[in-house]
Amino acid sequence: MHRVILLTVLSVALMGTSASVADEQPLGFFESSLDAQLEAEAIFLDTPAPAKARKWLAQLTEEPHVAGTPQEKRVADYVRQRLEDFGLETDVVTYDVFLNYPRQVAVRLLQPEELELNLREDFLEVDKDSSAHGMFPAFHGYSASGQVSGQVVYVNYGTPADYKRLEKMGISVEGRVVLARYGQVFRGLKVWQAEERGALGILIYSDPADDGYMKGDIYPDGPMRPPSAIQRGSVQFLSHQPGDPSTPGYPSREGARRLSREEMKGVPKIPSLPLSYGEAEKILRPMGGPRVPDEWQGGLAFAYHVGPGGSVVEMTVEMDGGLKPIYNVFGIIRGSDDPERLVILGNHRDAWTHGAADPNSGTAAWLEAARGLAAAVEEGWQPRRTIIFASWDAEEYGLLGSVEWGEDRAEELREKAVAYVNLDSAVTGRDLGVSGTPSLRDVARQSAAVVTDPHKGGSVAEGWEKRMAEKWAKESPIDFSQADDTFELQLGALGSGSDYTVFLDHLGVASVDFGFRGSYGVYHSVYDNFRWMEKFGDPGFSFHAAAARLMGIFAMRLASPEVLPLRFGAYANALEVHLAALQRKVIRINRKATIAGEDGSDGISVDFGPIEAALRSFGAAGAALDAVSDDVIARQDSAAAISLNESLMLLERNFLSEDGLPNRPWFRHLLFAPGLTTGYGAWPFPELAEAVEDRDAELFARGVIRVVEVLSAATSHLDQARQMASGQSD
Amino acid sequence: MHRVILLTVLSVALMGTSASVADEQPLGFFESSLDAQLEAEAIFLDTPAPAKARKWLAQLTEEPHVAGTPQEKRVADYVRQRLEDFGLETDVVTYDVFLNYPRQVAVRLLQPEELELNLREDFLEVDKDSSAHGMFPAFHGYSASGQVSGQVVYVNYGTPADYKRLEKMGISVEGRVVLARYGQVFRGLKVWQAEERGALGILIYSDPADDGYMKGDIYPDGPMRPPSAIQRGSVQFLSHQPGDPSTPGYPSREGARRLSREEMKGVPKIPSLPLSYGEAEKILRPMGGPRVPDEWQGGLAFAYHVGPGGSVVEMTVEMDGGLKPIYNVFGIIRGSDDPERLVILGNHRDAWTHGAADPNSGTAAWLEAARGLAAAVEEGWQPRRTIIFASWDAEEYGLLGSVEWGEDRAEELREKAVAYVNLDSAVTGRDLGVSGTPSLRDVARQSAAVVTDPHKGGSVAEGWEKRMAEKWAKESPIDFSQADDTFELQLGALGSGSDYTVFLDHLGVASVDFGFRGSYGVYHSVYDNFRWMEKFGDPGFSFHAAAARLMGIFAMRLASPEVLPLRFGAYANALEVHLAALQRKVIRINRKATIAGEDGSDGISVDFGPIEAALRSFGAAGAALDAVSDDVIARQDSAAAISLNESLMLLERNFLSEDGLPNRPWFRHLLFAPGLTTGYGAWPFPELAEAVEDRDAELFARGVIRVVEVLSAATSHLDQARQMASGQSD
Repeated sequence: MHRVILLTVLSVALMGTSASVADEQPLGFFESSLDAQLEAEAIFLDTPAPAKARKWLAQLTEEPHVAGTPQEKRVADYVRQRLEDFGLETDVVTYDVFLNYPRQVAVRLLQPEELELNLREDFLEVDKDSSAHGMFPAFHGYSASGQVSGQVVYVNYGTPADYKRLEKMGISVEGRVVLARYGQVFRGLKVWQAEERGALGILIYSDPADDGYMKGDIYPDGPMRPPSAIQRGSVQFLSHQPGDPSTPGYPSREGARRLSREEMKGVPKIPSLPLSYGEAEKILRPMGGPRVPDEWQGGLAFAYHVGPGGSVVEMTVEMDGGLKPIYNVFGIIRGSDDPERLVILGNHRDAWTHGAADPNSGTAAWLEAARGLAAAVEEGWQPRRTIIFASWDAEEYGLLGSVEWGEDRAEELREKAVAYVNLDSAVTGRDLGVSGTPSLRDVARQSAAVVTDPHKGGSVAEGWEKRMAEKWAKESPIDFSQADDTFELQLGALGSGSDYTVFLDHLGVASVDFGFRGSYGVYHSVYDNFRWMEKFGDPGFSFHAAAARLMGIFAMRLASPEVLPLRFGAYANALEVHLAALQRKVIRINRKATIAGEDGSDGISVDFGPIEAALRSFGAAGAALDAVSDDVIARQDSAAAISLNESLMLLERNFLSEDGLPNRPWFRHLLFAPGLTTGYGAWPFPELAEAVEDRDAELFARGVIRVVEVLSAATSHLDQARQMASGQSD
Repeated sequence: MHRVILLTVLSVALMGTSASVADEQPLGFFESSLDAQLEAEAIFLDTPAPAKARKWLAQLTEEPHVAGTPQEKRVADYVRQRLEDFGLETDVVTYDVFLNYPRQVAVRLLQPEELELNLREDFLEVDKDSSAHGMFPAFHGYSASGQVSGQVVYVNYGTPADYKRLEKMGISVEGRVVLARYGQVFRGLKVWQAEERGALGILIYSDPADDGYMKGDIYPDGPMRPPSAIQRGSVQFLSHQPGDPSTPGYPSREGARRLSREEMKGVPKIPSLPLSYGEAEKILRPMGGPRVPDEWQGGLAFAYHVGPGGSVVEMTVEMDGGLKPIYNVFGIIRGSDDPERLVILGNHRDAWTHGAADPNSGTAAWLEAARGLAAAVEEGWQPRRTIIFASWDAEEYGLLGSVEWGEDRAEELREKAVAYVNLDSAVTGRDLGVSGTPSLRDVARQSAAVVTDPHKGGSVAEGWEKRMAEKWAKESPIDFSQADDTFELQLGALGSGSDYTVFLDHLGVASVDFGFRGSYGVYHSVYDNFRWMEKFGDPGFSFHAAAARLMGIFAMRLASPEVLPLRFGAYANALEVHLAALQRKVIRINRKATIAGEDGSDGISVDFGPIEAALRSFGAAGAALDAVSDDVIARQDSAAAISLNESLMLLERNFLSEDGLPNRPWFRHLLFAPGLTTGYGAWPFPELAEAVEDRDAELFARGVIRVVEVLSAATSHLDQARQMASGQSD
């Protein structure tokens, strides 16, 4: 083994690219239509205004507006009215869905002393919106009702790995109350894990190490979480199945068969509540038992102990559940040549509190994008395909608005949806992040390259690419076998936690999600309000305008080109990066198993070879089809474009399996899914990832067959498309 | 690129080794002498007793005993008396060296409010030794005197990388007072870096994230650092040159030429003081300026800011410096056949406070090792080579006792020293760690394999190897180009911070250092005392006895075999691991430089090829010589052993260069040195590491030539030895 590390510095090579993207010809447009497109884009880009976004946000966040409440209905009406004011055609689609609210919640410390814990945030004089007025006390959407008491066990983030560790320490949570900290995985899955292990109930608190003072100054002096702030949220088992739990897998239309609360799956049977760190400290400090493993220590100023012993608590959760109406509001711009094809731009509207960042920074930007496109329409522009603005309701409980609608229109969407663009919290800071289906990478980069960075100048694409490159430089493993150690921009993999889920994972529609991120510690607390945004998130509201521009340009670049800008040459590269990560994980697992010795049951023997081979073919076919796309564009061949577009749009559907993933058939995409035990975080090759997590070599082998199957189908699909479009048959 | 990760679990393969080491035949012994050796070892192993170690420790730590004080002289006398009681020949070698003590020290907060900070630890009722009686207030050995005041800037650990970060934030420490936290690098180098950048003075505090409550329960309830505990210590620039700064590079004999304090290099020109976190909080909390980078946040319960602004302090440091006597105490067991050859077992004796862990757990174990060997001698055993027990003085100020003696006896030691075994803090817990020259790995493992783990049973080698393997499994990078992903035990690389330094780095003597480690947060504070050890470090004192056994067996296995147990086959492997780490570092640096773009000045173009080639030759020659050793042993060829031993002993000297390392000529070893900017931490290939840190391609190229030179010399040396011993000439 001889390695020569003769490395020179490639300074110009890399950063040349992102700066030059702005000069590229927009993907998919025929030469003949470019001028009109760029003119329309100029009109659009000129429209979004920080002052308008600020105004929309102030009005959207006047009151807390939890899904199913009259306040949220008022916000829906407000949004519809804005769209009409802009001159758009609108529609509202209503579903009755199962939601629940707290009737009574309480946490009482019984030992070492009796103490009632506070489930309300502190009111701050400087912040009118921090009052408890109109606000539910701390609760978890879809929590079970119940009164339980028991000794407390601290389980860190409450992941399967954490419980494995706990087991090694000889500590069980059975018959006890779990105290978990927020972070790493979706909260509903913390409840699931606790419930599976026989816990009576679970308290989930925000540790200052995760989004409190250890990450920055705290509200009201800074953007991070203060001691009384509480993270509300849903405890649905999001990675099992999102949407209305009373109509699993089918739409909540009038007259639909409804499951009772007891019959529902994917929602907890044990009560849960969120806590602030100011209150959690009162439980955690007196705890006995062994000291926690080093990585479990949080940011409170004492050594954490696992318990049990020291602290006993009583939880009271009385929930009021039933069917409530939710409102999806739509604005529509009909397409000219291809009105049947849909480009959908979604954002949810409901919030746990005032929701200034989550989600209404997105709603304000989305409104500005709609206003901008309406302005272009006013000036005579019309997209080739239909653009649908969607304002989803009840996302917070489990993506209900988008899922019910997606299930309701499944057939139509599978036939007609070109792409879905999501905007949840549009702005919590200045750093653009983009996740999405790999085929959308190039159009994402081009779109971001025409939006100016309000802070740094240049385009938002430059900053995005630079940050990704820096992360790669720092974290991406070094492999001496690779001659070429260069950065390639990839979109983040989509997990779940927002409304793209039904589109990508259930319907196979290419999807993308983005936002400008920053220090944001008030998530799902009363402090996620207008003052926070104005002081910390986006004082000039210029990033709201930038988000609006990016969303609108995305729409224009997806809806108008003669050839769809979906690209497949680099799709395989993205999958290879994900595969290498999984391979490294397997190697680490097997190293550990080898060292642990004895029965070696904690290792897994697997063969990645077939997938690697399938990826190579898929990559080659993708690159070949990209070349055909380029050729069709160069030839301005409208006839070829028709069949090509159909193929490009449908390619992603090849990755769906009618059976879906093991034990969660609603998730049909075999390449991307939310992690079964992570929820937010994506598992690329989800079946393989699950097999690795469970050390299940048989599941892995079955997964390989299924993944190779869909990759081969996609490869054939690409080959056919190439042959049809190029007229060849080779 | 096709990788098949078809990994099975190698459960039996690996852990078989460590368990079976105990059954191996001890390295280097002729069959004919084995029985007598094992018999003597049995007598030895039977001797060390926890109760004795406990008694020695209690008596050694009765008073604080800083070097140069009458208390420390009393401890020297005590140690000599014990050696005599055991029946050993003793000697004391005295040097007058420059030391300094605090006459007056103070830290006053001037803004935001006037406040005198406390430089004494809290007295705890439960712990008689925590009183300030007989104790200096907080100070730094070799601090400059001075009274300075200024705005405070927080610099994290105060490393060059931290200052680079600070520079990017546009903040300078010039004309200001630096506040650094302990950790990562030797404290003297923090002072050096601050001084280089024009700081007026520097305060160094112990952050609770590093050894306080975030790492475990705090004293007196646990082993970790409580709020008032202060880490004293030397601020010599340890990596530049250790030893008496008044006689740099030559021994402090009577009549030696002396530098004045002003002429001395390698000691600070600016005043410095240590602080507890209880006091540091009073400075840090009010600080203004930008929020710190995420990794700079410590464990105090607020968001750290860099400053300047908010806090202004005044430091007063009045030191009293002069020549003081120090005492190296020796116990000697003369060798039978080869009395000229020396195996040296060292431990320092001086402490900043009572020093129960640092260093007198080592002294107690060292005494028990001496008592054990004396018992074997009593029963008729005599080592083949001479064993010297060395009790060093004034290690804490900068390794003075060992360095002056090493310089004093340089010629003799270069000719005659076989190996140096060091024991500093022998016990702070139960986990054996061993660092040393790669040629000593096998004898280290064999020695550890005959010492029983008092906690787990089995041998201490098993636990050691398992922990190293676990660390490898978790952290060691995965390289897809390596077919074979298996663990190989290596000794840790020796940096500095204890008395092996002069032997390895200045004299080229193979060295090893070990200790049983655990949660230890009271380092250099008044709480490092007998109560701490009895409650937390080693309640039964059984690990003191284990450390004694390991040290003694080491001595017996180095001093008695017919053929020296120095092995060179795996030496190159160890160097390859270090080289790969440096290569990865270069790749990361160049990735970053590439991304940063512009002038690319922050990258470095280098060629590792020549070193890789030299390592391959060295590895092959080493393996060949090991085979010859085995052969000489099998043949019981006493004549061949004579020349072979000479070669084995001297091999390490090949790595010395008379010129030494750039700007620190005292450090002569070209393969291992303390990091110029780390002090404690080793830099394998120090010249290359420095070149990489400084992005100095020319220095790197020069370094490559020098490293290849010494590797080639060593390879020739190995070849010659092989030819001589095997009688071949190929």
